[in-house]
Amino acid sequence: MESVKSVLMVMGSPSDLPIMQEASGILDSFGVGYDMKITSAHRTPDMAAKMAKNARKDGYRVIIAGAGFAAHLAGAFAAHSTLPVIGVPLANSALSGMDSLLSTVQMPGGIPVATVGLDKAGAKNAGLLAVQILSISDDSLIAQLDEYRKSMQEKVHEANEKLVLQRDS
Amino acid sequence: MESVKSVLMVMGSPSDLPIMQEASGILDSFGVGYDMKITSAHRTPDMAAKMAKNARKDGYRVIIAGAGFAAHLAGAFAAHSTLPVIGVPLANSALSGMDSLLSTVQMPGGIPVATVGLDKAGAKNAGLLAVQILSISDDSLIAQLDEYRKSMQEKVHEANEKLVLQRDS
Amino acid sequence: MESVKSVLMVMGSPSDLPIMQEASGILDSFGVGYDMKITSAHRTPDMAAKMAKNARKDGYRVIIAGAGFAAHLAGAFAAHSTLPVIGVPLANSALSGMDSLLSTVQMPGGIPVATVGLDKAGAKNAGLLAVQILSISDDSLIAQLDEYRKSMQEKVHEANEKLVLQRDS
Amino acid sequence: MESVKSVLMVMGSPSDLPIMQEASGILDSFGVGYDMKITSAHRTPDMAAKMAKNARKDGYRVIIAGAGFAAHLAGAFAAHSTLPVIGVPLANSALSGMDSLLSTVQMPGGIPVATVGLDKAGAKNAGLLAVQILSISDDSLIAQLDEYRKSMQEKVHEANEKLVLQRDS
Amino acid sequence: MESVKSVLMVMGSPSDLPIMQEASGILDSFGVGYDMKITSAHRTPDMAAKMAKNARKDGYRVIIAGAGFAAHLAGAFAAHSTLPVIGVPLANSALSGMDSLLSTVQMPGGIPVATVGLDKAGAKNAGLLAVQILSISDDSLIAQLDEYRKSMQEKVHEANEKLVLQRDS
Amino acid sequence: MESVKSVLMVMGSPSDLPIMQEASGILDSFGVGYDMKITSAHRTPDMAAKMAKNARKDGYRVIIAGAGFAAHLAGAFAAHSTLPVIGVPLANSALSGMDSLLSTVQMPGGIPVATVGLDKAGAKNAGLLAVQILSISDDSLIAQLDEYRKSMQEKVHEANEKLVLQRDS
Amino acid sequence: MESVKSVLMVMGSPSDLPIMQEASGILDSFGVGYDMKITSAHRTPDMAAKMAKNARKDGYRVIIAGAGFAAHLAGAFAAHSTLPVIGVPLANSALSGMDSLLSTVQMPGGIPVATVGLDKAGAKNAGLLAVQILSISDDSLIAQLDEYRKSMQEKVHEANEKLVLQRDS
Amino acid sequence: MESVKSVLMVMGSPSDLPIMQEASGILDSFGVGYDMKITSAHRTPDMAAKMAKNARKDGYRVIIAGAGFAAHLAGAFAAHSTLPVIGVPLANSALSGMDSLLSTVQMPGGIPVATVGLDKAGAKNAGLLAVQILSISDDSLIAQLDEYRKSMQEKVHEANEKLVLQRDS
Repeated sequence: MESVKSVLMVMGSPSDLPIMQEASGILDSFGVGYDMKITSAHRTPDMAAKMAKNARKDGYRVIIAGAGFAAHLAGAFAAHSTLPVIGVPLANSALSGMDSLLSTVQMPGGIPVATVGLDKAGAKNAGLLAVQILSISDDSLIAQLDEYRKSMQEKVHEANEKLVLQRDS
Repeated sequence: MESVKSVLMVMGSPSDLPIMQEASGILDSFGVGYDMKITSAHRTPDMAAKMAKNARKDGYRVIIAGAGFAAHLAGAFAAHSTLPVIGVPLANSALSGMDSLLSTVQMPGGIPVATVGLDKAGAKNAGLLAVQILSISDDSLIAQLDEYRKSMQEKVHEANEKLVLQRDS
Repeated sequence: MESVKSVLMVMGSPSDLPIMQEASGILDSFGVGYDMKITSAHRTPDMAAKMAKNARKDGYRVIIAGAGFAAHLAGAFAAHSTLPVIGVPLANSALSGMDSLLSTVQMPGGIPVATVGLDKAGAKNAGLLAVQILSISDDSLIAQLDEYRKSMQEKVHEANEKLVLQRDS
Repeated sequence: MESVKSVLMVMGSPSDLPIMQEASGILDSFGVGYDMKITSAHRTPDMAAKMAKNARKDGYRVIIAGAGFAAHLAGAFAAHSTLPVIGVPLANSALSGMDSLLSTVQMPGGIPVATVGLDKAGAKNAGLLAVQILSISDDSLIAQLDEYRKSMQEKVHEANEKLVLQRDS
Repeated sequence: MESVKSVLMVMGSPSDLPIMQEASGILDSFGVGYDMKITSAHRTPDMAAKMAKNARKDGYRVIIAGAGFAAHLAGAFAAHSTLPVIGVPLANSALSGMDSLLSTVQMPGGIPVATVGLDKAGAKNAGLLAVQILSISDDSLIAQLDEYRKSMQEKVHEANEKLVLQRDS
Repeated sequence: MESVKSVLMVMGSPSDLPIMQEASGILDSFGVGYDMKITSAHRTPDMAAKMAKNARKDGYRVIIAGAGFAAHLAGAFAAHSTLPVIGVPLANSALSGMDSLLSTVQMPGGIPVATVGLDKAGAKNAGLLAVQILSISDDSLIAQLDEYRKSMQEKVHEANEKLVLQRDS
Repeated sequence: MESVKSVLMVMGSPSDLPIMQEASGILDSFGVGYDMKITSAHRTPDMAAKMAKNARKDGYRVIIAGAGFAAHLAGAFAAHSTLPVIGVPLANSALSGMDSLLSTVQMPGGIPVATVGLDKAGAKNAGLLAVQILSISDDSLIAQLDEYRKSMQEKVHEANEKLVLQRDS
Repeated sequence: MESVKSVLMVMGSPSDLPIMQEASGILDSFGVGYDMKITSAHRTPDMAAKMAKNARKDGYRVIIAGAGFAAHLAGAFAAHSTLPVIGVPLANSALSGMDSLLSTVQMPGGIPVATVGLDKAGAKNAGLLAVQILSISDDSLIAQLDEYRKSMQEKVHEANEKLVLQRDS
């Protein structure tokens, strides 16, 4: 049933998978369906263009694209689709991600990319941002998002209690 | 009728208005309703927190936040709302926006900000990204987005024709 | 007796503890009381705001806040308290702390953060800066600070002697 | 009556005065006494060292130092005094202040400098930080600081009202 | 006769023309034919892809692509053509071209872009590099290149003579 | 038969060999002949100048130069030859290649260097760019380049199939 | 009488003269003889190499080289001479001198360049550094250097007096 | 016999020794006498000032200063001595030496520091630059410097021969 495949997640190389699984892990935990594909703005530009052009009519509602170096993947998807595209810059070059960050975020006027931070924290936030976007027309996700935030807060409280115990012992 | 006030746009200072009007201009041209407020994560943190907490129940579906320097405004809204928050980093300090860009985009895992590029191009893209996000549950916006893209393409074709004329003359 | 709890030290995550203990180690060695809390400007913004708002009336006189990435913690405390807030940027992202440094130091006019350097040297200096601030109304700390400086100087002299011995042997 | 000369403000060159007057303007408005001197860590190192060494016994309780380029002035004062030293990096070189920022903030462990942001916003915050530091032993300043914050908030509210009027007209 | 149209020069916007004319000026002076087009990797991706795919069979032997911001144009042409693609990063954003430089040069392995420097000097060098590439199978260009270099050297000698005259007078 | 020695590959130090073999591996796989030399713009400037001056008459048609730090090698070859010179900046200093990248790419107007990305991806692309340049007068290389691209695309398709299997299992 | 021509000053272009005259002004005021030449590491590499090789036997004892962009001039002189070479990076590209600074200072081991700061302050310091180097075998310069420093200190004292007058009036 | 102690080498911490021994190794191999001291611009400012003030009359003719972070040591020595001061920025902070490089090289006009590159290559070049400076009044060093350069060139030739053998085998 592809109605739950709301998110199309793409990345430039299978080596990006360990980072991008931070995003898919979030989608899994929120029960948001997604497809995950390897495609490259540079090595398979036609495949990427076709996937982007079909994305909305294939039922996707958000695209997540992760890439490193001169990271054009998110921009290439944004050029071919009016769905919201979330870009995850990966820090896998010598320049520690300054290259992929600027290549992803500094889009010229007219074609936006919703850029999140570098690497694992960024990929996780890409998953959450996708859920937040979907939540504008899916009330069940709002409750889950509230729950998720509460659980983050509880972890902070637990960490504080543990800290007190450490200092007291 | 506030049902059309889908977007809450906030900025840290009235001096940010000339940049942020790139975003509101887009929303106007797509017929997307919005409210525009001055609020600061640092000078009026409680006001900002309250606005963020109420944003979803006030009917907003996307938040756009523009700020410069150590730009915390988008992050502060994201901390208090599970609506998608679009951050526009402004280049109004000596560091030409590297400070506001990194302060906006490098959010820790758990609280995403959808960051667009710096200044006018970024603000314009913030408006478009908001429309694209709204389009996942509003088909009329899809057609308008397609139209907008076509018009951008026509401008490129016209620029080419003008270029040929210049070189021929 | 909380009158000696002059310093409130906060950090965004328990994983920041090994760095921030450079600060608490200094406070311990000067006999300056402190409380240490985990709180996040993004995940627990209300908790952070409440702690900041109460800090002065809770008897604290200096706040130390350590955070990485788009480090807003010090700025959030500064927004809610007129106590001096010392910010320690942590270098735990792909960008080696350029993100947390700029997010901490480039505060807009009106809400200052006293920023120290990155990571361990910065955290140690945060502890010393807190002591120096407290010393403006506590003469016993002045003598201790002079002692501390003398001991640093002696270490330099000892290092020189050891160097001469090495080269002579 | 030098008892009100709580702050020693130094800068490397008379050309830094227009920036540093943002700091002195704050001190004036809070009724905090200060002396203002030109001195250079490089051109007049002995003068700077002497001023720093005498600062505490001369009755100062906070030092503010503004400098550009390889900005060593704050560090030089910090090396010779255990008073809190606030460093204001100035963006007057080709590198837009990245040089003065890093030269001021990245102090080695043992000798802290409380660094604020670049240029006018930073200088203003240096003045406010000095007041906040003095407020830990001067209750009258606490009330003034609260007043100052309220007035900043009111300006935000006024800006909002003006914005509504503009959009309505 | 398009056999002399050896170079396809593309740029993202008509506003890039004043910079890119440094390249066309060089081609003109070497008698190298070229076509000049406005096309955008983001706003007209299909047009750009089609132009790139046809470039070799249309008789072009070198492509020059100039773009600013997250400059993907050269990379997009390189993705669709095995002709040598010269990328000219333009410094028209707040980040002074660090964004376009990294977006152009940091291509992932497999799809090269021959990147030259930023702005006018870069565009001029793009023209010269195109001529140098064409010279590997066109001996007449070798002689012209030698002549060009000699003329640059003569300008240096003339500048020296003028300098001597200035100092003597 | 040196007619197939189309490429002269130079590097500043034998320690650069593991990176530069990415380039020679490409040339080997395309059957493009090359010579590989150690030479330094700084330690052996006359040797480098002589090699560059003779390169065209020695039958080379493309030069590849790899160097780190203040990487002048490509620029030095470009100064002495009108052959296309490809520069590979190496990231072997504390600054992670920002030094070698800027030293290689930011050539003044008049003397171009075709700069590729840093380190292994850059060196591989240098080999491919050399082949693409040679392909403008060697049709057999065009077919090989098409083949190479197809094989890259197939690897992406295989990666996708493997990804589907992983998720299904 | 060229015995007083102790310094050879070179720059890449006549447009660098307004900056480099900060250096020659210093040499003039210390009565140190110098020659000033336009020469380029890229456009006139043989001329530059010859000047460098002959520099010591022509009686020069210090070389000052100013250049912008991928600034190789100082490095090229250092490669051909064992005289001390002072490099002045010029900030005349889009990157505000970060390119010329790194290209000048990050020399590989074996060939040093004595790098000073960017632009006018750097050029002035290049002149002073040349004088300081010459002073190790010319006692008359030591006295002049002491005098120069005293005069700088007096200017600081005068600035202070003027500041007091301003505040008193 | 301290007449051969021509160089005073200082560093901020004993942990800098492994880097700075690149400099002392060069001085040893050229038979140039030196003293090596630990001293800190921040922790032992009076000791550093005194050493700098006495350096010339103590018979030193060149000073080498190595330091990391906000590296003020070279600047502090330059402020107190008119001897040529060579600064070696060390890359021992989170910012990989960008902090120490800018803190060392961007000296304000009037007080020059002869800055070399970061870390080992820089320290080695500091030693060589000291020898080159001394060579302006010591002809025996000129011959040694020529010898050193020849030996570097021979190493390049040997590396080339080894490379040929590798490829032939």
